[in-house]
Amino acid sequence: MALLGLGTVGQGVFELLQIHRERLREKLGVDLEIKKILVRDLSKSRSVKVSKDILTTDFGEIIRDEEIKIVCELMGGIEPAKTYLLESLKAGKQVVTANKAILAESGEDIYDLAMKKGVYLGFEASVGGGIPIIKILREALIGNRIECILGIINGTTNYILTRMLENNLSFEKALEEAKQKGFAEADPTLDLKGFDSAHKIAILASLAFGAFIPYEWVYVEGIDEIDLMDLKFAKQFGYIVKLIAEAKQSRRGIEIRVYPALLPENHILTSVRLNYNAIYIKGDFVGDILLYGLGAGKEPTASAVMSDIVTAVEYLQFNKFPLIRYPSRVKDALKLVPIEESIFKYYFRFTAVDRPGVLSKISGILGNYGISISSVVQIGRQIRKGAVPVVMLTHETKEERVIGALKEIDCLDVVKARTKRLRILS
Amino acid sequence: MALLGLGTVGQGVFELLQIHRERLREKLGVDLEIKKILVRDLSKSRSVKVSKDILTTDFGEIIRDEEIKIVCELMGGIEPAKTYLLESLKAGKQVVTANKAILAESGEDIYDLAMKKGVYLGFEASVGGGIPIIKILREALIGNRIECILGIINGTTNYILTRMLENNLSFEKALEEAKQKGFAEADPTLDLKGFDSAHKIAILASLAFGAFIPYEWVYVEGIDEIDLMDLKFAKQFGYIVKLIAEAKQSRRGIEIRVYPALLPENHILTSVRLNYNAIYIKGDFVGDILLYGLGAGKEPTASAVMSDIVTAVEYLQFNKFPLIRYPSRVKDALKLVPIEESIFKYYFRFTAVDRPGVLSKISGILGNYGISISSVVQIGRQIRKGAVPVVMLTHETKEERVIGALKEIDCLDVVKARTKRLRILS
Repeated sequence: MALLGLGTVGQGVFELLQIHRERLREKLGVDLEIKKILVRDLSKSRSVKVSKDILTTDFGEIIRDEEIKIVCELMGGIEPAKTYLLESLKAGKQVVTANKAILAESGEDIYDLAMKKGVYLGFEASVGGGIPIIKILREALIGNRIECILGIINGTTNYILTRMLENNLSFEKALEEAKQKGFAEADPTLDLKGFDSAHKIAILASLAFGAFIPYEWVYVEGIDEIDLMDLKFAKQFGYIVKLIAEAKQSRRGIEIRVYPALLPENHILTSVRLNYNAIYIKGDFVGDILLYGLGAGKEPTASAVMSDIVTAVEYLQFNKFPLIRYPSRVKDALKLVPIEESIFKYYFRFTAVDRPGVLSKISGILGNYGISISSVVQIGRQIRKGAVPVVMLTHETKEERVIGALKEIDCLDVVKARTKRLRILS
Repeated sequence: MALLGLGTVGQGVFELLQIHRERLREKLGVDLEIKKILVRDLSKSRSVKVSKDILTTDFGEIIRDEEIKIVCELMGGIEPAKTYLLESLKAGKQVVTANKAILAESGEDIYDLAMKKGVYLGFEASVGGGIPIIKILREALIGNRIECILGIINGTTNYILTRMLENNLSFEKALEEAKQKGFAEADPTLDLKGFDSAHKIAILASLAFGAFIPYEWVYVEGIDEIDLMDLKFAKQFGYIVKLIAEAKQSRRGIEIRVYPALLPENHILTSVRLNYNAIYIKGDFVGDILLYGLGAGKEPTASAVMSDIVTAVEYLQFNKFPLIRYPSRVKDALKLVPIEESIFKYYFRFTAVDRPGVLSKISGILGNYGISISSVVQIGRQIRKGAVPVVMLTHETKEERVIGALKEIDCLDVVKARTKRLRILS
């Protein structure tokens, strides 16, 4: 086999095989050997001891080598990873990848190509790190109609939200700390803005609903505008804020989105702290299932990659490809429920002038839009010249009403800043 | 395919296939058909509508039918299930079973026979109901050295313990309720005495440690002697009592046991309530993983069986058998750490005469055995003529010391009943 990339994940896979090669040989009767590793820089010093002989900067050496039957793409990013991945499939090699971006954005073509070439494509490491969520959705729950997937599938944002609330840190401080501890990348944009979670939920939804769900269908909000103040107010009302990835299938259609949500404190996902991930699934036969574990990191991801490598070896020996189809086609019958049509309870934080009549003005507009309020708290702490935060929770209502109402409210001259709006998960 | 048995699980599988046959055909390109169902009584009325033509009371009709390639043993119990299972393997049929007792007690021969005959043996439904724990241990975590498995894997006992504590019910009342709700069988002995959990942890340990772990190795204590009083005292100290199944591998050897344990209230397993199951696994690469779901019941178990049926179809089409070996042999290198050698913290409830000097007598004996006490509470409530409960928690100590000390203590004339001893999980 060959590895493309010797970054964190590549090194993890290399180390795993160093430690467990004998154990695996015993269980499988097969000796797993890394023949080549594609790197950008041959002379770079690395924490793992790799013989120089197996390093190469030339992908051609790998693709032309007929002894290399399995290619593990562990480079990340779109290019050249995508080209190499497609080339490997075309060459009839079994492919294992950890690349969520490519699968979410071009999965249709990739799944299709794998099936046409009759090769196995493993992507356990693309979602949930060490949590075997791909295998579970694809294989273990095959006898189910999946109704809903709800998860915390980004460790960086979960770490930041946990530290902010529990240690009274600002967003910036918590982000800084996450970077220092290696839980956030140098450029954390993809994580913070929710795009990483969006890639992952698109992959999971495709498996769950048995048809390719385009990444563009995912409504995305990140945590980059989350204020410590809102985490604390939410807590006062008995809620914990988490970045949620959600995919639902109902008679109305598919709802798929990533957004920071208020979860009731007794919700099982609120106990998922720091860099842990968890995924809740509801199937018509299996009922509720929850999977919890480390969603990223060298070792957990290597564990996921190795599971795929073993499956690849099995298909290779059989000279067969998987019975279970990949979700390569968009199904016409599936339709997306736009976010405007979706129904939530809401948390609003208005920044309003502390003066009689202001509250009635705001609630008057909400009333005009048919939004009914379940609780209001005005906090006597000035946050802007003469303005104080007013927090309201609403009953269930359609998102489009909220959009309309907040537009009007934010134009009031007694409202001094854009209203913060968060959705509540019931 | 054929089903052996049309009880709860058999009916669930039948219904699942009625509902999802088309969906599965779409995903697999294969039509799954139940050709025969073995029953004891043809005329019995059942809640599922099954054509009389496919029912039979003669196993010979199934074993001789060459069109039947997959046999699902869903009868439960040892005989005739075991004979039919072995016959099916010998006949070269793919076998799916939900029978934990047979696998735990005779797995060595069964795994061996499956490999000799080159057929697939699926047993996802044998442990954890709908939780795909077998697939995860066997396949997803194959790149790991498993250090520890810790789980709540019996729904009946978990339901009873939850209801006792939360609703102030006696053991008998809670058991009665569990029976009424269908969470306990008419004869619940196997569940209450911990044998069901013991069967399951033996199967899981065999997969985790890559060698057959004999069922006799499992040290077993059930919940049949648990008193509501002890659940409440434990709660006062910040612990919740759960029936734990545990398997550990360390330099000392294998530790494998089932016992009611005090778990600190913030332990993730304490949030597993009622008839839910959860299994925690620690692997050297994957880190901590937790799986949570319904551990029994018609639909969840049918979901697990269907996953195995699909795998069986795949191997059948390939005319191959699994690359990953079954744990058919006891490894000489593995040795059991006897319970006497195991180390725990303990909860003791003494029933002692309320008189000066009694406490010093008891703690003197504990001291002689080198058992050191971390907290003591004497509760001023009489439970036997002139005797009150005295609860003590200890620091870590060897079980054999506890056995010795309690033997002496229970012979004291100021001690009026056998001392209650529970282990604490740290």
